Amino acid sequence: MAKQEDIFKNVVSHAKEYGFIFPSSEVYDGLSAVYDYAQNGVELKKNIREYWWKSMVQMNDNIVGLDAAILMHPTTWKASGHVDAFNDPLIDNKDSKKRYRADTLVEDYCKKLEDKAKKEIDKARARFGDAFNEEEFVTTNARVVEYFAKKKEILSRLAKGMTDDLQDVKALIEELEIADPETGSRNWTDVKQFNLMFGTKLGASADSAMDLYLRPETAQGIFVNFLNVQKSGRMKVPFGIAQTGKAFRNEIVARQFIFRMREFEQMEMQFFVRPGDEMQWYEHWKETRLKWHLSLGLGKQNYRFHDHEKLAHYANAAADIEFNFPFGFKELEGIHSRTDFDLKAHEQFSGRKLQYFDAELNQNYVPYVVETSVGLDRMFLAVFATSLQEEALEDGSTRTVLKLPAVLAPTKAAVLPLVKKDGLPEIAKKIMDDLKWDFNVAYDEKDAVGRRYRRQDALGTPFCITVDHQTIEDETVTIRHRDTMKQDRVKITELKDIIENEVSMKNWLMKM
Amino acid sequence: MAKQEDIFKNVVSHAKEYGFIFPSSEVYDGLSAVYDYAQNGVELKKNIREYWWKSMVQMNDNIVGLDAAILMHPTTWKASGHVDAFNDPLIDNKDSKKRYRADTLVEDYCKKLEDKAKKEIDKARARFGDAFNEEEFVTTNARVVEYFAKKKEILSRLAKGMTDDLQDVKALIEELEIADPETGSRNWTDVKQFNLMFGTKLGASADSAMDLYLRPETAQGIFVNFLNVQKSGRMKVPFGIAQTGKAFRNEIVARQFIFRMREFEQMEMQFFVRPGDEMQWYEHWKETRLKWHLSLGLGKQNYRFHDHEKLAHYANAAADIEFNFPFGFKELEGIHSRTDFDLKAHEQFSGRKLQYFDAELNQNYVPYVVETSVGLDRMFLAVFATSLQEEALEDGSTRTVLKLPAVLAPTKAAVLPLVKKDGLPEIAKKIMDDLKWDFNVAYDEKDAVGRRYRRQDALGTPFCITVDHQTIEDETVTIRHRDTMKQDRVKITELKDIIENEVSMKNWLMKM
Repeated sequence: MAKQEDIFKNVVSHAKEYGFIFPSSEVYDGLSAVYDYAQNGVELKKNIREYWWKSMVQMNDNIVGLDAAILMHPTTWKASGHVDAFNDPLIDNKDSKKRYRADTLVEDYCKKLEDKAKKEIDKARARFGDAFNEEEFVTTNARVVEYFAKKKEILSRLAKGMTDDLQDVKALIEELEIADPETGSRNWTDVKQFNLMFGTKLGASADSAMDLYLRPETAQGIFVNFLNVQKSGRMKVPFGIAQTGKAFRNEIVARQFIFRMREFEQMEMQFFVRPGDEMQWYEHWKETRLKWHLSLGLGKQNYRFHDHEKLAHYANAAADIEFNFPFGFKELEGIHSRTDFDLKAHEQFSGRKLQYFDAELNQNYVPYVVETSVGLDRMFLAVFATSLQEEALEDGSTRTVLKLPAVLAPTKAAVLPLVKKDGLPEIAKKIMDDLKWDFNVAYDEKDAVGRRYRRQDALGTPFCITVDHQTIEDETVTIRHRDTMKQDRVKITELKDIIENEVSMKNWLMKM
Repeated sequence: MAKQEDIFKNVVSHAKEYGFIFPSSEVYDGLSAVYDYAQNGVELKKNIREYWWKSMVQMNDNIVGLDAAILMHPTTWKASGHVDAFNDPLIDNKDSKKRYRADTLVEDYCKKLEDKAKKEIDKARARFGDAFNEEEFVTTNARVVEYFAKKKEILSRLAKGMTDDLQDVKALIEELEIADPETGSRNWTDVKQFNLMFGTKLGASADSAMDLYLRPETAQGIFVNFLNVQKSGRMKVPFGIAQTGKAFRNEIVARQFIFRMREFEQMEMQFFVRPGDEMQWYEHWKETRLKWHLSLGLGKQNYRFHDHEKLAHYANAAADIEFNFPFGFKELEGIHSRTDFDLKAHEQFSGRKLQYFDAELNQNYVPYVVETSVGLDRMFLAVFATSLQEEALEDGSTRTVLKLPAVLAPTKAAVLPLVKKDGLPEIAKKIMDDLKWDFNVAYDEKDAVGRRYRRQDALGTPFCITVDHQTIEDETVTIRHRDTMKQDRVKITELKDIIENEVSMKNWLMKM
């Protein structure tokens, strides 16, 4: 557990030190749960976005793109259910004036019960050694049985209270004597629902001002444009509309770095199908999306499906692709069979038909929708955290290396003159100037070449090209591979093809 | 004048019909001055953004990227001057409850004076024919002289009132007996300043909620990150930070399609230089940015510089690159020498040093900044409107063709089987499947081939590849060039290189 936390801290500090992610507005002490992508982060993020876009839009002739605005007509969010139901249950402490999510307070209490049980188990293990049978112990030890039973009962009452009556959640908090974690006070207000959408106002006049929301998801921008795209693009069902863009949620407790932010970016594709065909497409997209993730080579063991037992009001099937983040397996992507819920809701609230005429069936219908939705920032975190490695070297030292998939690396190659004289910098710059038409390339002449290699390792640069005195004689350079640290002697004229072969999106997508 | 308006209407309707731009949330009757980029628009916009990014970031090893969040610490906008001075002067009509920009009301009044003068001039021209000397007429005809003199006087009083005392603007409106254009009422309120930033609130608790703004410009995201980027990227002055992203302005009167929107996207680069070197870099960037625009081949005559006479409070030199839009020459890009105003302001409001240590000079200083700032949506409009052409053909018919620069075209090639039988569709699909790894490619088998060519012309697709019966025999196809309509017979294996040569960003950037 401590190890995981250390790894995570290391991820956060490496991201800052090497120019991937800065806290937003850091000169003003930051803005909570908002981050800026720095000079290397912006390139990594762009590459992830483009890798997704190419695989979705460029490679599928029945999927097209869209870029809907963040500001939408407010009735959109009435129809989608966000105005009425996109809430967190909040409770205030009357003494400290601190505000908490009521469900989180109860869940944290349950976490403590679980910790107590674990402590008992660890003690017993230490006492009995190899003879210890954990499975038997947890079903027979009275204290442990009680801890787990109590936890189960509380969570079940919490779930019921959350749907039926928030007063029951308040009663539960009082019964368990849960205190303000910061001050210890048990003087609580009632539990109230708080809407997570950021609001703003359009227009200047008090009379005509319109209450708007910053979109809490990008999906609705696709649904309200469905018929315009279908008609102007002459699309035939089944077809998809893909979009990347910012969304905003006024999270009360936002944590875990860029995993849960108040401003975040989604990569979504809504696939419109014949009613009745949705389960087949749902399975297709589950499989296809997992393949896309696996093509990046971060390790099959880091992914798993989590099928939802409890479905959202709009879905008839839903699964997450979970990823093994530094803080455990968590949702990376959602694949949802959303039925015709959204299009029907927009029909109802707009008074317009959102139907498709299926010429083959000679029939009008509202299509069903299968959604694939990845958090771009979560993808970034998954790729970045998994790639960041400490490696023990043969000589006993260690190196920090960011083993990013080469296709996503911010800089593809660094060109390094071995020394800062004898014309080597000039040759190195010439090589950079030739390669930069095709790739992001860096030039570095400062410090000993070994230190420069380490720096490029930490930045995730797949190739270092070193210009030495032999280069003057025979127009060859060494090319060093980040992961193996192996160096090959190659002709300058071969460089472009060697790099292209390893970093081109085409070659990576072909692995899918 | 009527012609210009027709052209503009045609641009708007073509953009909708062919899937480039839709009004936002159109099923709910749209959201004023907000637009969505449709399936072809999103690709054109992406290509413009990427063309800019490559030329700025990839090609210059002293310019790096950034992607700062839309939400920033509110003190940012205090320091930048936006909280206090980013205002429009508004006036309400007490009877109609309509709200107007006070300066626009006065300017519209002046426009009418100008129209009256023009009418006199036109009448005189009609009467005197070739003998008419306009220059002499406007200086001697009493009525015309009066109209122009009055206009000049009013505008000068307006400018003074705007800076000194808004009560003088109100007095001017009353003196000129300006009425509500919709209702004719002259019952006005006082003129008040209205801030153009969209506000929102972060956090749930009434006590702890923080007033935030949606950023009205992307530039400040660069300034507050300046030192983090410089240090983590080990940048040496002169260096630049480039960024693309959304900004928001609560415009009272937003018009002209995507030219002035409430939500828009900027492409900005802030270049940090030694104090004293700024004018040299200002000239450099004026020239370089114009070259970038010219590289797209929309016509040199469509661009002109407009040097600002009146400078903003932060600038010591400023110029616009204006473009010949369907409604006349208007600002497309701004190049501003911003001095050290922003960095110094953030130093003052944050209490932190934002200084750079110049090793060559052995000296600390706050760098000066030269900014280049293009509106991405304006670039889109410039490219789209200029490319949309009606062409008279030899046979007396006309065709609508969108002569987009090939590097920016949403779809690079369409593959068309001449007929929907004899195995031609299968060959065409195979060609598409091969090409789609490298380009956005479309397939179309519906309607006669002539109609398909017209459709691709209207979408701006540079190449149509037609598969016919000869293809079966010798593996050749015809490739048709959008602009010349010329068709060449080529081998299937040659297609990739032919297209690549015309559409690659590398080749286009080399023209700069």
